[in-house]
Amino acid sequence: MSIDAPLPSSPRLMVDLDAVRSNYLLMAARANNAATGAAVKADAYGLGLEKIAPVLAKAGCNSFFCAHVSEGMIARQVLGYDVEIFILNGVQFGEVPLLRQKHLIPVLSTSEHIALWREDGENAPAALHVDTGMNRLGLPWHEGVPDMVKGLNLTLVMSHLACGSDPAHPMNQQQLERFAVIKAAFAGMRASLANSAGILLGEAWHHDLTRPGIALYGGAPLDEGGPNLAPVAHIEAPVLQVISLRQGQSVGYGADFTAPKDMMVATVAIGYADGLRRDASPGGFGRIHDQKVPLIGRVSMDLSTFDVSDLTKPPKPGDLLCLLGKDLQALAIASDTLSYEILTGLGPRFVREYKGCGS
Amino acid sequence: MSIDAPLPSSPRLMVDLDAVRSNYLLMAARANNAATGAAVKADAYGLGLEKIAPVLAKAGCNSFFCAHVSEGMIARQVLGYDVEIFILNGVQFGEVPLLRQKHLIPVLSTSEHIALWREDGENAPAALHVDTGMNRLGLPWHEGVPDMVKGLNLTLVMSHLACGSDPAHPMNQQQLERFAVIKAAFAGMRASLANSAGILLGEAWHHDLTRPGIALYGGAPLDEGGPNLAPVAHIEAPVLQVISLRQGQSVGYGADFTAPKDMMVATVAIGYADGLRRDASPGGFGRIHDQKVPLIGRVSMDLSTFDVSDLTKPPKPGDLLCLLGKDLQALAIASDTLSYEILTGLGPRFVREYKGCGS
Repeated sequence: MSIDAPLPSSPRLMVDLDAVRSNYLLMAARANNAATGAAVKADAYGLGLEKIAPVLAKAGCNSFFCAHVSEGMIARQVLGYDVEIFILNGVQFGEVPLLRQKHLIPVLSTSEHIALWREDGENAPAALHVDTGMNRLGLPWHEGVPDMVKGLNLTLVMSHLACGSDPAHPMNQQQLERFAVIKAAFAGMRASLANSAGILLGEAWHHDLTRPGIALYGGAPLDEGGPNLAPVAHIEAPVLQVISLRQGQSVGYGADFTAPKDMMVATVAIGYADGLRRDASPGGFGRIHDQKVPLIGRVSMDLSTFDVSDLTKPPKPGDLLCLLGKDLQALAIASDTLSYEILTGLGPRFVREYKGCGS
Repeated sequence: MSIDAPLPSSPRLMVDLDAVRSNYLLMAARANNAATGAAVKADAYGLGLEKIAPVLAKAGCNSFFCAHVSEGMIARQVLGYDVEIFILNGVQFGEVPLLRQKHLIPVLSTSEHIALWREDGENAPAALHVDTGMNRLGLPWHEGVPDMVKGLNLTLVMSHLACGSDPAHPMNQQQLERFAVIKAAFAGMRASLANSAGILLGEAWHHDLTRPGIALYGGAPLDEGGPNLAPVAHIEAPVLQVISLRQGQSVGYGADFTAPKDMMVATVAIGYADGLRRDASPGGFGRIHDQKVPLIGRVSMDLSTFDVSDLTKPPKPGDLLCLLGKDLQALAIASDTLSYEILTGLGPRFVREYKGCGS
C-alpha cells in the first residue's frame, strides 16, 4: 500500500533519466571498443530499476547485471527478452528452473553453482566468475578450473576489481595480470573485468564487456577526480517551521547543538528514515533558494534542522530544502560514506518522480 | 512491482508480532494510569505499519502517531475509524480537506498551522505541540499561546523530550517544569509528553497519554539499562560461498582486511543496500548455527564477508546467517548509531514475513 499523490508535506525524490542516459553514453565512449553493460542491482542503486533499465536499453545497453534472482525477474519483465541479464549472486538450490524460464544467466562462482547448473541447466548459457584477489565472490583460480566447467555453455568469464577507485593501487595491475591468465585459458570467450572505475583505469582493463554502475547514477567512481557526470538524484523536502534561537539555546536530541550566537533555524520534513544519515550532522548541508544551509543538531527520524541565519531571504514554512543533485558527493563525505550507500539508503517515504527520456 | 516468492537467495526479514504486542503491554504497564498510544511513523519504524498497527489496536492502543499525512492515510485504511490518528508534522497548505475527510488530527506547531486549521478545519479536532526546549518542532511558549488557539477544537496538548534516553540529564526535569506551566494554561485538556524513554523516567512524566515508539519494536529507549524488551526484527541471509584465506591475503573493497592467519571466510547475500551499514565493519557480527561470526572487510552493496574460522561446524553455501534479534543493540553500537536508524534503514529487498498474533 502506498500513497502516490504528491502531498505538499511529502519529501520528493526526482530522478533525471536524461542524466542517466548521458552518463551511460559517456562511460560507453570511455570504454572504447568494449560493449558497455550496466549494473542495475539493488533497484538500480536505489533509484528505480523499472524506470532506469529501459532508458539504458534504449541508449544501447544489451547486458544487465543484477545481484539477486528477484531483481533479474523484474528486469526481465520490464526489458523483454532481447537483452541478456546476469545474476551476479549465482544460483541457489531450487532456483534453476526459474532462471531457465526467465532466460536469466547465473554467474557461477562456486563448485555448488556449477553442479546445480550442470545438473538442471539444460545447457542454457551461464557466466563464470573467477576471483583475482578480492576474495569476496568467485571461483579461486587454479589450472583445473577449465575442466570443472567443461561442457557448460559459458557465455562470459568475469572477475571484479577490489581497488579500482584508487588508480595508483598496485592491486589493479595485479588483478589485470591474473585475469590475463584466466582469459588465455578461456580463449575466444567474452571477458569482463571493469566496473565504472575499471573503465577509467584505461583500455587494458576494458576487455569485451564493461559493467558500469555508480557512474550511471551520478556518483563518483574514483576517490579523487574523474569525469564530469550529470547529477541524477534530486531531493526536495518542505520546511515545516522556522524558529529564532537565542545564543546558548540547544537544538534536537541530546541537546547536541548549542547556538554560538542568535540564529534562525529551519526544521525540515526529512530525517534518517528517508536516508539523511545521522552521520551527516555536523558537516552536511542542503540548499534553500539555491543557497547552502548547514545541517545542525542531531538528525532525527522524520525531521532535521538547518541553520538558515545567513540566507538573504529568510525561508518560510512550505519552502523547499534541496539535497543531493550536484551535492551528492559532499553529503556522502560529510556522512562518512560513499555516494553508493547514500543512494541505496534512500527511504520509501519519497514521492518518486521521473523526468526526461520521454518519461 | 515486487517478487513476493521467498526465493532461497533472498534475504528475509521476520517480524515477531507477538513480541510487538508484549512490548506494548510492558510499556502500558509502566505507564501506570496514563493511556498508552503508539508511534507508528516511518512505516512503524521500518517494520510495516499495515501489519503492526492492527496488532497494537487489538492490544488496546487507541492513539496512533504518524509523522506524515501519507502515513496517516495508510493507518486509517488499516485501522478503521474507531481510533485517533495524529499527524506529528502538522498540516501543509492544501492538505486540510484530506485530513478532515480521513479524520486525521494534525498536531499544530506553528502559527501557519493554526491559521490553516482555523480557516478550513471546520472545528474538527486538532492537537497542539508546544516546545519545551528541544527547539525542533512546536510553538515557542509564551503567555499569548492560549489566545492564539482560542476557538479551536483542541483534543491534546503535547511536547517532546530531547534527552529522555539519559535519565540523569537536567533537561528532563526542566522540560517537565515547563510542561507543567503549559498544562496549567490548558486545564482539563489531555496532555502528552512521554515517548518510550519518558515512560521509564517515572510517573511525573506520564500525564494523560504516552507515545512509545522504539520500545515497541525491541530497541533500547535508554542509553544504558532499561526493561527487557522482546526482540521484534530478525534477519536471515544465505551464505553464498565459503573460501579459505591464507595469512596475508586481503578481503573486499580497498583490500581493507588482511588475514592475520589462515582463516575461513563466508560471503553472505546481504549488504548495505539491505541496511547492513558499512560502518558495521569492523565490530559487527552475525550468527551462523547460533554461534557469533565477526564481520570482516568492507561491507559491499549486496554482499558481506564473515570470519567463520571458529565455527565448530563449517558453514556451507545455503546455510543462513542471522542478524538483529537479540543482537540489534550490539549491531547499532558497532555501526556507530542507534537501533532506530538500523530499523528504519532496512532495505526493500527483504522478503518480509510476519509471525504471531494470528498473522
